[in-house]
Amino acid sequence: MRSAMAEAAVGDDVLDRDPTMRELEERVAGLLGAADALWTPTGTMANIVALMSHLDRGQAFLAPQGSHVLDFELGTSAWLAGGMPRPLPHDGGPGKVTAAAVRRAAATDGSYAALHPALLCLENTHNAAGGTVTAPEEHAALAAAARAARLAVHLDGARLWNAAVALGVPPGALTVGADTVSVCLSKGLGAPVGSVVAGSVEFVEHARRLRKMLGGGVRQGGMMAAAGLVALENVDRLAEDHTRAATLAAGLRERGWRVREPQTNIVLVDVADVAGTIAAFAEAGVRAGAIAGKLRLMTHRDVTDRHIAAVLDRIGEVGPASTGSPGAPPAQLDRTRDLPQQARSALS
Amino acid sequence: MRSAMAEAAVGDDVLDRDPTMRELEERVAGLLGAADALWTPTGTMANIVALMSHLDRGQAFLAPQGSHVLDFELGTSAWLAGGMPRPLPHDGGPGKVTAAAVRRAAATDGSYAALHPALLCLENTHNAAGGTVTAPEEHAALAAAARAARLAVHLDGARLWNAAVALGVPPGALTVGADTVSVCLSKGLGAPVGSVVAGSVEFVEHARRLRKMLGGGVRQGGMMAAAGLVALENVDRLAEDHTRAATLAAGLRERGWRVREPQTNIVLVDVADVAGTIAAFAEAGVRAGAIAGKLRLMTHRDVTDRHIAAVLDRIGEVGPASTGSPGAPPAQLDRTRDLPQQARSALS
Amino acid sequence: MRSAMAEAAVGDDVLDRDPTMRELEERVAGLLGAADALWTPTGTMANIVALMSHLDRGQAFLAPQGSHVLDFELGTSAWLAGGMPRPLPHDGGPGKVTAAAVRRAAATDGSYAALHPALLCLENTHNAAGGTVTAPEEHAALAAAARAARLAVHLDGARLWNAAVALGVPPGALTVGADTVSVCLSKGLGAPVGSVVAGSVEFVEHARRLRKMLGGGVRQGGMMAAAGLVALENVDRLAEDHTRAATLAAGLRERGWRVREPQTNIVLVDVADVAGTIAAFAEAGVRAGAIAGKLRLMTHRDVTDRHIAAVLDRIGEVGPASTGSPGAPPAQLDRTRDLPQQARSALS
Amino acid sequence: MRSAMAEAAVGDDVLDRDPTMRELEERVAGLLGAADALWTPTGTMANIVALMSHLDRGQAFLAPQGSHVLDFELGTSAWLAGGMPRPLPHDGGPGKVTAAAVRRAAATDGSYAALHPALLCLENTHNAAGGTVTAPEEHAALAAAARAARLAVHLDGARLWNAAVALGVPPGALTVGADTVSVCLSKGLGAPVGSVVAGSVEFVEHARRLRKMLGGGVRQGGMMAAAGLVALENVDRLAEDHTRAATLAAGLRERGWRVREPQTNIVLVDVADVAGTIAAFAEAGVRAGAIAGKLRLMTHRDVTDRHIAAVLDRIGEVGPASTGSPGAPPAQLDRTRDLPQQARSALS
Repeated sequence: MRSAMAEAAVGDDVLDRDPTMRELEERVAGLLGAADALWTPTGTMANIVALMSHLDRGQAFLAPQGSHVLDFELGTSAWLAGGMPRPLPHDGGPGKVTAAAVRRAAATDGSYAALHPALLCLENTHNAAGGTVTAPEEHAALAAAARAARLAVHLDGARLWNAAVALGVPPGALTVGADTVSVCLSKGLGAPVGSVVAGSVEFVEHARRLRKMLGGGVRQGGMMAAAGLVALENVDRLAEDHTRAATLAAGLRERGWRVREPQTNIVLVDVADVAGTIAAFAEAGVRAGAIAGKLRLMTHRDVTDRHIAAVLDRIGEVGPASTGSPGAPPAQLDRTRDLPQQARSALS
Repeated sequence: MRSAMAEAAVGDDVLDRDPTMRELEERVAGLLGAADALWTPTGTMANIVALMSHLDRGQAFLAPQGSHVLDFELGTSAWLAGGMPRPLPHDGGPGKVTAAAVRRAAATDGSYAALHPALLCLENTHNAAGGTVTAPEEHAALAAAARAARLAVHLDGARLWNAAVALGVPPGALTVGADTVSVCLSKGLGAPVGSVVAGSVEFVEHARRLRKMLGGGVRQGGMMAAAGLVALENVDRLAEDHTRAATLAAGLRERGWRVREPQTNIVLVDVADVAGTIAAFAEAGVRAGAIAGKLRLMTHRDVTDRHIAAVLDRIGEVGPASTGSPGAPPAQLDRTRDLPQQARSALS
Repeated sequence: MRSAMAEAAVGDDVLDRDPTMRELEERVAGLLGAADALWTPTGTMANIVALMSHLDRGQAFLAPQGSHVLDFELGTSAWLAGGMPRPLPHDGGPGKVTAAAVRRAAATDGSYAALHPALLCLENTHNAAGGTVTAPEEHAALAAAARAARLAVHLDGARLWNAAVALGVPPGALTVGADTVSVCLSKGLGAPVGSVVAGSVEFVEHARRLRKMLGGGVRQGGMMAAAGLVALENVDRLAEDHTRAATLAAGLRERGWRVREPQTNIVLVDVADVAGTIAAFAEAGVRAGAIAGKLRLMTHRDVTDRHIAAVLDRIGEVGPASTGSPGAPPAQLDRTRDLPQQARSALS
Repeated sequence: MRSAMAEAAVGDDVLDRDPTMRELEERVAGLLGAADALWTPTGTMANIVALMSHLDRGQAFLAPQGSHVLDFELGTSAWLAGGMPRPLPHDGGPGKVTAAAVRRAAATDGSYAALHPALLCLENTHNAAGGTVTAPEEHAALAAAARAARLAVHLDGARLWNAAVALGVPPGALTVGADTVSVCLSKGLGAPVGSVVAGSVEFVEHARRLRKMLGGGVRQGGMMAAAGLVALENVDRLAEDHTRAATLAAGLRERGWRVREPQTNIVLVDVADVAGTIAAFAEAGVRAGAIAGKLRLMTHRDVTDRHIAAVLDRIGEVGPASTGSPGAPPAQLDRTRDLPQQARSALS
């Protein structure tokens, strides 16, 4: 990837578009079945330009509880895009909502003084629920319910690649009925920076202007785009991350931890004391994170089978029992610390 | 009230304050135990200047589900004040939340990239839950939990007078620990327009500037303030509205309607088809409204015992059974239509 | 006026419109040649709902330097309506801009990354320039230039009545080509509160929603509307204010003050030390204000010929010479203070 | 630079900071005499996080006419940071304002209803004025006037390196009295992307959160930071750009063009028909841009002496006389087109 970056052709993307950037954008648009696409420095910016284009003051948007746009983007969906959030309960299982819930939340008396629901914002996989997957037919039903209620549909697909691989379908099968889709090139795919947001030609034209407003209109983006193009070749490799997450979850369960069965590369663990457990894991040389009141472990391209074995070995010494008692000293743990660098868990 | 308005002394409130306005503001501040207060044209503006003064972009605020600031102010708490809402479930009964829920929702990992909870916004009585009352000790516990979590506290007291009368306590007993409180002079009290928001001297100074920004800085407000001063004398009279609401609820229940026991002047009725029932009631000369998926009937100063009797009489003819079947014609109803004017139900 | 207010028919303007309010709105719409109109509590809110409806983030608007929307509305045209201001120099004389200046400022390279000019906001009379009048043909030329450049046109007509009376034309002759017009019912016309913003039916529908957002959606507005209806009968009377302003200006000039010839009811005086002169005038029992670095005196319905004579008498004692020397004590002045109450000057 | 990028050490800058990023930020902070600094993807984002931290709704900011924050950032200083702009005339010469002008524009009556001036935003070199330089003593006087008027000071130093080289002073000599300073790593220095904003430790902490809000919080930014570190070594080389700009200007003047004497690397040319001249230049294989109604030519690291000679040669054929007459065909020009790629002129 670094050599691809070093050799990338570049132009000025603010003026007349960088050629490597255009190649990346067109490639992603094709994968997602969209007319066009736009690179952004981060997934947060990809989502916010989409929401800014869909929402206006006085409108409401629906999103599953715990969505990234609700909890991890510093409220921009509300104060910047202008939408009042209506969180949807996960009535379809972890990370999943039903078409009936969409219909209910989209209902309005139509009064001039009432909030007007305008957007359904989905997330696949749903990060905070543990990387849970929404299948094509489930997604299609939600999108149809939204459209019937005259809502636009945005799909936060930061982890859409994981969903596609887990389901064995092309990513485009998961975007049906969505007006806009954002995907991430870092995280599992490994590009150092960059996301892409896709939609109609008119949307991308508007989004490019919004990106400029927010300070995301870089000039010579070719090198970052080159990294993104290489990253796209890593999609199939995500299956390995999923297998390792399953191995990790099984091993943890054997050792007495309460683990939710992973659907992709995220392993959520129920512990009484999340912060204490993270600290104990860190002592043991394993980096874990917290999300939605749970411990979160993630696999990615730098986590190997050997790392999984080492993690299970070390975490075994921490023990699920001790996690409720912050006093229990993890004193006997190996302190070589060679893992944190590789086996880290990111927050979003 | 109209004669008080016609005789009010006025000044220029934008320049050096209108004397009648000042009298009203000081009177309300005294009732609420606040250092100072500010008149606003509407309760929506009273709430929004309070929320603008408490919140900033990147922050979250907690409010019971169905709160006026969440559902009935066109999202201004979010897009204008900048706060990301965290709706609290009514885990303390209809319209009520618990201190434990406040503590849970106020938790944050403190990360620079996370939403920072900054405000608890309470509503007493809680309109959408059916005018439910929060008692002084319940309120105090919520405020204490908020303060312990370093949240500011705003109390939307549009119907605080009703809560105080229902509880038999002075309004000031319900504002303990609140930084700011808004109250309404119209609704039950009968002023044609006007609300008041109270707080510290510094808050009011800032709020006055915010009011000017939003276009609420009227000049000769003396006449409206005079109406407000008269309205304040109507507080005790609210007990009659509560009695009539109880009578109405009992009568409806006798006639087979599913009615929630009213705590103040709002009667909520569970019906299968809200819009259809409203239409049927209107046919019968009774004006009802909808809120939170229920039928809402309200009593106020222009609703007499005779009206209650007439309403029960007419509604009886509609019949709870017919409300699920929009086809059932309310053909046999009295169509004299003398009630809508008086027995109307307002939306907020 | 007060008796009209006391007898006004009222309804709930949030729900289904107050009848007196509707009468006022339709009356004003008719006067301005607009399809419909909407009452607002203040002129600031009238302007801001108009600007919010015309502007969006990433757009620019043109307005003569010193306009109310630029300098006296706390920046809402920018941060709330989203427009970047492009102040126009008064190249057509005090308070006036030329069509050529509009064309120049409306030019854009059309680039996706550039501000898009979207609105011309005029003000007639122009307050900060001293109540200067723009004639029908001048206004029409500006509106035509704006439309040719694909700009919308808003007219801040807080003092449009003064312009019409000074020119001897109906107000509607001054609104040609404007999409929206705001007028004030207080100030010279004498209503205690209230402004009206007029435009297309679609605009008013949208503006009503914006008014609700900002907290200007009052319920029983009939009494204020009744005052507005009476105020409209005071338009012709404004000619007296203009005559008195001319008398005042002539008298001041005779006494050695540097006075700009008034076109309506505002007299601007050039003094070296504005604050000092205001203080000296106040000592003399004359209330003056400051605007755009000048002293401002205004005539209105409570200022009689006798007041003008008294003002000239007292100001004569202050003397133009002393205004540069704050030390000069106005010790010999009459201190009966019977004027301030009546002969006050408002800031906007 | 590309090899430095390819070998950069990276971390996760969202979580615990990327090491190369930190090195770059500390290096720039040192150069500017600031306590700390923060990388941003673009100069627009660097400016906007600074302005968001300085400004609030209801405040005004002062900036020289034609400033980047006024004309080239899509109004974000207004609608996003909340400040009402007060453009300052260039009363100190092209691109320069005087301390007296700052004092005048910072004056306020202090009224609660008035805009409160809060910030002076300078730009050195001033792009739209033709890369004009403000000297250390001039800058210091402006900063002192601002501080005396209780304004914060932000310096948009996208081209500060050019000013420092042209003046023969270290960049830190041009930041005295500024609270925040933004500098650009692309443009003349040649990094593909990236700017840095510097200020106090508290500012940077806040700015990091603002950057995250706007979607600028990239994760593995090490490679871009590595490019920035190399770019910083290019500062002295800017002297060559200035020399070539002088040569270009002299050559153009000899050939009859009206050229402003360049102070750095920007050459502004007065032409009657800017768009037509740009088109004619493009025909001749020379890429020019437009700014503030003038033709803009820029020199940078990819423009050699040979290019300057070629440009003069080709532009000579266009001829200043023809620029007013769009009909004059540039038919006889060399069409080899080998220049546009290298000798381009960027818009900001």
